[in-house]
Amino acid sequence: MSWLDEVRWDAQGLVPVVAQERDSGDVLMVAWMNREALAKTAELGRAVYWSRSRGRLWFKGEESGHVQQVHEIRLDCDGDVVLLKVTQLGHEPGIACHTGRHSCFFQRLDAAAGHWEAVEPVLKDPEAIYR
Amino acid sequence: MSWLDEVRWDAQGLVPVVAQERDSGDVLMVAWMNREALAKTAELGRAVYWSRSRGRLWFKGEESGHVQQVHEIRLDCDGDVVLLKVTQLGHEPGIACHTGRHSCFFQRLDAAAGHWEAVEPVLKDPEAIYR
Repeated sequence: MSWLDEVRWDAQGLVPVVAQERDSGDVLMVAWMNREALAKTAELGRAVYWSRSRGRLWFKGEESGHVQQVHEIRLDCDGDVVLLKVTQLGHEPGIACHTGRHSCFFQRLDAAAGHWEAVEPVLKDPEAIYR
Repeated sequence: MSWLDEVRWDAQGLVPVVAQERDSGDVLMVAWMNREALAKTAELGRAVYWSRSRGRLWFKGEESGHVQQVHEIRLDCDGDVVLLKVTQLGHEPGIACHTGRHSCFFQRLDAAAGHWEAVEPVLKDPEAIYR
């Protein structure tokens, strides 16, 4: 599939992927894909990442049930970053983060105080997500 | 500044950074920062990246005038991706991409046809941006 050749894979054969919730516009997470993960994502219409820690394909939601339905796949100008427009399934409101939060970007810099502050609530106890 | 130590810099001392337009929610671009770039971004309230191709700090907008005013800096659960909430200055509507488009993510996958398609207009001729 030639469209896969237009992605500029890095030295590890990976590309960073931003998952954005289509309806809210919220940036949910950034993960990585290899060629097979991106092909599977396009084929299945659900997000399939490459888990760098586990060294295998990661069908998002395979354990948590928090599957990401993929509406659009975009590539940036340099061909080295992918953007997914998704619906975060499995919980209402959607939980993308393994901490049980809506978005992985829940830490906001308080520059005056010089620290990161968690500003998003835990929607579901991670122990109840990963049993 | 200890908050900088909480970022999980990669082997090159870099972290990927997503720039999201605060008011529209649009994902504008993904670039990279080193420690100095992130410190400068927090200090100045404007996006300062690390240009991997030029090997130096890149004050976004230094040539184009398309400066990004930074409202919020967020860090993800693993500490290895940063999200900026920005206002894209210098043109109305904002131009973040060096191709003269609003967003760098202007190529959409047409999975049936098997190719990427440019689906966002060029708002300003790049030759008029970079003189």
